[in-house]
Parts: sequence; C-alpha cells; structure tokens
Amino acid sequence: MDIGILTIGNELTSGRISDTNSALIARLVRAEGWSVAAMLSVGDDEAAIRDGLAFLLARSEAICATGGLGPTADDITTASVARAFGLPLVRDEAVLAHVRGLFAARRLAWTENNAKQADFPEGAEVIANPTGTAAGFALRRQGRIVAVIPGVPAEARRMLGEGVIPLFRRAFPDAALYVETATFKLFGIPEAAVDAALADADLAGLGVAVGFYPNFPENHLVLTVRTASAAEAAPKMREGMRRVEARLGKHIFARGDETLAAICAALLTERRLTLGVAESCTGGLISDRLTDVPGSSAFLERGVVTYSNAAKQGLLGVPAAVIEAHGAVSAETARLMAEGVRRLAGTDLGLAVTGIAGPAGGTEAKPVGTVHIALADAATTIARHFAFRWDRRRNKVMASQCALMLLLGYLRGEATDGG
Amino acid sequence: MDIGILTIGNELTSGRISDTNSALIARLVRAEGWSVAAMLSVGDDEAAIRDGLAFLLARSEAICATGGLGPTADDITTASVARAFGLPLVRDEAVLAHVRGLFAARRLAWTENNAKQADFPEGAEVIANPTGTAAGFALRRQGRIVAVIPGVPAEARRMLGEGVIPLFRRAFPDAALYVETATFKLFGIPEAAVDAALADADLAGLGVAVGFYPNFPENHLVLTVRTASAAEAAPKMREGMRRVEARLGKHIFARGDETLAAICAALLTERRLTLGVAESCTGGLISDRLTDVPGSSAFLERGVVTYSNAAKQGLLGVPAAVIEAHGAVSAETARLMAEGVRRLAGTDLGLAVTGIAGPAGGTEAKPVGTVHIALADAATTIARHFAFRWDRRRNKVMASQCALMLLLGYLRGEATDGG
Repeated sequence: MDIGILTIGNELTSGRISDTNSALIARLVRAEGWSVAAMLSVGDDEAAIRDGLAFLLARSEAICATGGLGPTADDITTASVARAFGLPLVRDEAVLAHVRGLFAARRLAWTENNAKQADFPEGAEVIANPTGTAAGFALRRQGRIVAVIPGVPAEARRMLGEGVIPLFRRAFPDAALYVETATFKLFGIPEAAVDAALADADLAGLGVAVGFYPNFPENHLVLTVRTASAAEAAPKMREGMRRVEARLGKHIFARGDETLAAICAALLTERRLTLGVAESCTGGLISDRLTDVPGSSAFLERGVVTYSNAAKQGLLGVPAAVIEAHGAVSAETARLMAEGVRRLAGTDLGLAVTGIAGPAGGTEAKPVGTVHIALADAATTIARHFAFRWDRRRNKVMASQCALMLLLGYLRGEATDGG
Repeated sequence: MDIGILTIGNELTSGRISDTNSALIARLVRAEGWSVAAMLSVGDDEAAIRDGLAFLLARSEAICATGGLGPTADDITTASVARAFGLPLVRDEAVLAHVRGLFAARRLAWTENNAKQADFPEGAEVIANPTGTAAGFALRRQGRIVAVIPGVPAEARRMLGEGVIPLFRRAFPDAALYVETATFKLFGIPEAAVDAALADADLAGLGVAVGFYPNFPENHLVLTVRTASAAEAAPKMREGMRRVEARLGKHIFARGDETLAAICAALLTERRLTLGVAESCTGGLISDRLTDVPGSSAFLERGVVTYSNAAKQGLLGVPAAVIEAHGAVSAETARLMAEGVRRLAGTDLGLAVTGIAGPAGGTEAKPVGTVHIALADAATTIARHFAFRWDRRRNKVMASQCALMLLLGYLRGEATDGG
C-alpha cells in the first residue's frame, strides 16, 4: 500500500521550521510494511492544499496530512479539505464540549474562534487528540482515505500511533502484514561505523530490514521483520537481533523505548541506592534528565550546580589548594566534587562533572570541550576524561550523556577506574 | 516569483532522515523576496521524479532539486531529469578531469562509476561543487529553470549560496523584492487569544503578513512585509509592529532571536547582579536553561536541586517546622528556599521553585501541577502560585518558564508581590 504525506503550514514553506512530521509518518508507515509515494509540504493556502491532495491521491491509497487545524485565521486546512471534496462543514457538539472542557480545566479564557476546532467535513470520522485541543479527522472517498491531524509534533506522534495508523490498518486489511520491530539504542559509535559493522551480517538475506536513526548523541537502530504471521517473524527477528548484538553489543545501552535516564533510575530504585549530583559545565542538565523520570525522588537526594569555585569549595568541600594546583576543570576536582556531594548529601553515590562547554573559556592545555566526570561510592571513585568538539549546547548534552553512561556502567557492574 | 523544491532520496521517503535541505532552500528563497510554491520529497524513482518535476513546474518559475547525484547505482536523478525533458546525457570532460583530480589529491582509488558524475543533460549549465565530487547543473526550459544539486547538506548549502540563488537572480532579475520580518515572542496567552486580539488590527490591509508559531510554552508571532524597496517596507513594518504592541504588549517578552534565558542573563550581567537558584520540581531545568547562555558564569553563582526535604533543610536552611506545617510544596517553603539560596550563595538574588510535576504525588488540596515560585533580594521576597495541567515534562518546562518570567519582570522593574 502506498501512502501520501501532506504537511501544511507557512512555517514549513518559509523555512522557519524543518518538517519533522513527514519523517515520523514515513517511519511509522514503513514499520507497517507500507511505502511512502511522496511527501509534499505546502503553505496555508487553499489552492495549494487542493492541488497537493489531488497529486497525492493519484499516487496513493491513503493520505496522512498534518497542520493547520488550530483556532487561528491562518488555520484553513479543514475548510480547504472540505471544499476540495465538495463537502460542507458540520459542527460536532461532542468535540465542542470537549474543547470547552479543556479550556475550563486549564483555566484558560474561552474565545469563540476556538469553536472552529469542532468543525469537520460532513461524514468525517473524528480522530481524538488526547493532548491538545485540535482533533483530527478522516474522510473516505472512492476507496481512498484521507486522515488529517494537527502539526504539533508531540500531538501528531500520539494521534498517528493511536488514531491514524490503526485506521489505515482497518481500512486496508489486506495490506496488513505481520510486522515486528526491535530497537537498539547505541552510544559511542558513529552511524557509518554501525553500517560498516553490519556489512557482513546479511540482515537483508534474512528478511530483516534495518533502519538507522541518529538522535544526538545516540544512534538508534531499528530492525523490522514483515511476514504473514507472528510465528514466521519470531525466528527471523531472533536471529537478526543475535547478529546485531554479536557485532555491536558493547555499544548497545538500551532496547525499545527505554531512555538512558530511565534505565539508571530503575536500577537505582530497584537496588535502593541514593544519588547526589554535582554539576559544573552541564549546568543542571543531568539532574534535569534524571528528574524527567517519574518517581526520581526515590533516589535523587539532591543536585548542585557549582558554577563558581566558591560553590565547589563551600557546597562540596573541594579545597581551594586543589583548584589552585590542578584547576576547576581537572580529574582531581571532579573526583573531589563526586566525593563531596556524596558525603554532604549522605547518599550511596556521588556523580560529578566539570568542564568547559564553550564557546569561550578554553586554553591550549584545556580546550573548549574538555570534560572530567567522576563517580564515587563508599569504597572508590572512578574518573573519566573527555575532549568534545561540539557547540555549547551539544557539549552539555554529550557531557550529561557520558556521565549517565558512567553511572549505568557502574550500576551494571561494568565500570572500573580507567582514568 | 514562486520556487518549487524537490528533494530526492529513499532516505527521505523511508523516514530514515529528516529533510533539512527543503527548509534551508526555503529560507534562502524567502530572503530573496521569492515564495515557495511547494516542497516535495520523492524516492530514488524515475517516475516519481518525473511526476514531481511536472507538478512543481506547473506551479513555479524555478525549481531547486537536491539529491541522487552520487556515483552509486541508486543515484538516478541526472538521468531521470534528462529523460523527463527528452534530452540525452553528455559527458563533460572538464568535470571528469576535475573529479579524477579530486580522487588523486585525496589518494582515493578511482572506480569507473565515478565518471557518471561528469554526465549532464545536453545543454545544461554546470554548477560547481567546491567541497565534493558531485557537480550540479541547471536547465532552462520554456522560460523556466531547473537547478539540481547534491543532497549532502554541507555541499548543498554552499552550492545554493554560490551557484543556485545567483543563477535564479540572473534568470529572473525583475523578481527581486525587499523582505522585512519582525518576530515577537509571547508568553501567557494562548494562540487563539493572540489571533482574537489581532482581529481588528487589519494587518493584511496594511500589507503586513502575520504568522503564528507555537513553541511550547511560548507563542511566536512573525510579521512579514514584502515590498519593492526598503524605503517602502519600513513605514508598513513600523505601523504593523505598533498595532501588535498596542494589543499584545504585556504578553511580549522578547523580540527577534532573543531567548528568555538570554534576556535574563544579559540584564543580570549588565547590572552586575549575581544569582543563586534552588529547584525542586524543575529538577535543574532552570539552571540548565540559564547555563545554555555563553558567559553565564558571570552571574550564576550556584544552583541547587533540593529534591529531598533534608536537602531543603541542610542546603537552604528551611526549618523542618515550616515544611511540617505548610508542606514542602507551599509559598512559605518557596520563600524560604529563595532566601536560603541567596544567603548561602552570597548572591544578590535567590530564585526558587517547589511543586508537584506528576504524574504521582498530588493530593486534593495540592493536585499535580501545583507550583510555588519565589524570588528574593536583600529587601523583599516575591512569591507566585501556579496550577498547571500538563504532563510531567511540560509541567517542568512551564514552571521553569514562569520562574524565568518572574526574574525577568523583577529585572525590568515590573514584578511586585502579588502573592
């Protein structure tokens, strides 16, 4: 089955934002065993929407369109689609009541233009939006189906998985193959090296498709098996996973939807270990990632962002003489920060990062991107040194990743003091 | 002048990578005062390339296509474009010598499939590739122009600036307009209310286009004026901005590319004020945002993530009796956290947040999303109470936003203790 993707919005045709919805939809379509005929982006313009629909309808059995469903005057997708098919708009009272309810619950003032979000082309099936006010809809015409959802990526992601894809599956039952996917999350290996490592794995010969999805600073690898039945898929997927693990095992830190912070959190919680975090160049990002995990208060006793030397001394007990002798960015300071936050927080573990995020602050001996990370328990302190070459934000993200990877390695009994 | 954008590659239609070239081209096109008619992505498939060209040629004066110019078997763009226009391929000996020279200079083994990169449709103008082996080309047909360049973003970027855009300018000298844009960043007002507030502003009548770009938790508003000259644009833009500011001024916190954290950082640095931050439910996100600004060490003395009550007592001096009486999530605790971090960090200001991010931890009296924020200086402490209704991550983002907005209001002399 061929799918057409239509993304709608002046923010796309003006280049103000890159279209990420099309790639997301394409990945979901591919995981179902379907193909993408074409991906088209047009502005908030009725003629362009009409022509785009016609172009895609001539080349696909189903269309997924996103964007232009909001309450404002430039949101014209619903009306444009209705007119393209010669259908009147009909107000859905249940949707209207739902939108009004959301406004009341969030204590937002109601303005009448929001009612527009309850108007749909006659005969359309409503696609619920569990996280926002703009519902989507699907229309069936001449054996084809057109689904329209909002362009906000977080809303689109959920409505695709819960609404659009199941709807396409039901509409085209013959196109549904059994599809099984497996995701590996890798860190510390570039995409090209992943590709090279798999060169002799012959996954294609096995009937296992492989997709690469860079997600800075991680690389995600997705195996997909399409067969007529689950029984047929299972041995192929098992063997495919075995071949990947044999070649890339040491770079795989997670499987499926697990995040690095969530895996660390689960291990800490399960083993009833508590943690204190001391951050300099990451500026709170490690604590932020750990506290994105529900229930993180079970293990995270405190975090400190010791940006100044006074804070490193006062909050963590790093002696001024050590900072004087080795510098605030040094293995010695990182070790004492980790030990200090552990001691002062009274936790089982102390994790610390100090470094130079840039763009200024580098020297010849310690260029921008120099980062020291340390992890202390009651018995010992492990330290690591890194030299990153990214911009400020990505240096922060990379440092937080390496700190959490060190913690994960420790929790899995793999980390030793390699310097 | 309308431009069509065609990006070609199976890596796009499979969702393996997001198309960033289209947005890049659109931004360059817009900066010239031209418009983008549509952006289309198709796979490495001759029929799809042919149909895509036809669709775009019917809607634009010029097409910029990227991708599929490499040496491998799946790179079929040049041959497909040639056949779409009924043209034979002709080898360009100068380009061939150049490509061979690059291989020699980089000490790469020559393989004969690389010669393909010197083949172009008859009559095409070669577009030089200063950084790679695949040259681009441009074809003129029936008053229209089709430019084709490689898909590698770094190569495309340079060839667009040095080759394609100048070529379009020369081909359509009358199409150059002057374009001016202005961005407002708003907070605390839903998109629909922004739209409603501008309903009587008649920006369209003034010749000022307005675009809404939600960027949780902010709403961005972009005004665009297209005229023949800068002199003509200036008064329209001035009046358009005046009308927006008159209606939405109190919700506008930034203009242009400024971020909330960067504005706070600039004001703190300029006034030589230092800051300590104490976070509970935001988990380090406020410090993370502030430290994304280069040079933040000038004002950020320290941050603490006091997730436990022990940390609130030990690091910030919040008395156990206060937490006992009012709860860790209370205005009283927030005030004492702000005062505590200020005193202990020895800073001019102390900013504190305590709340319940969810999904668990809520009670009837203090549901998930309850957040208290406080800001202390030497003389007084301001506190604010919020009730958010989002998921965990968005409650964190919203709380960090409100805390930085409180700081900004204070620095601008607008914040008073409203409770």
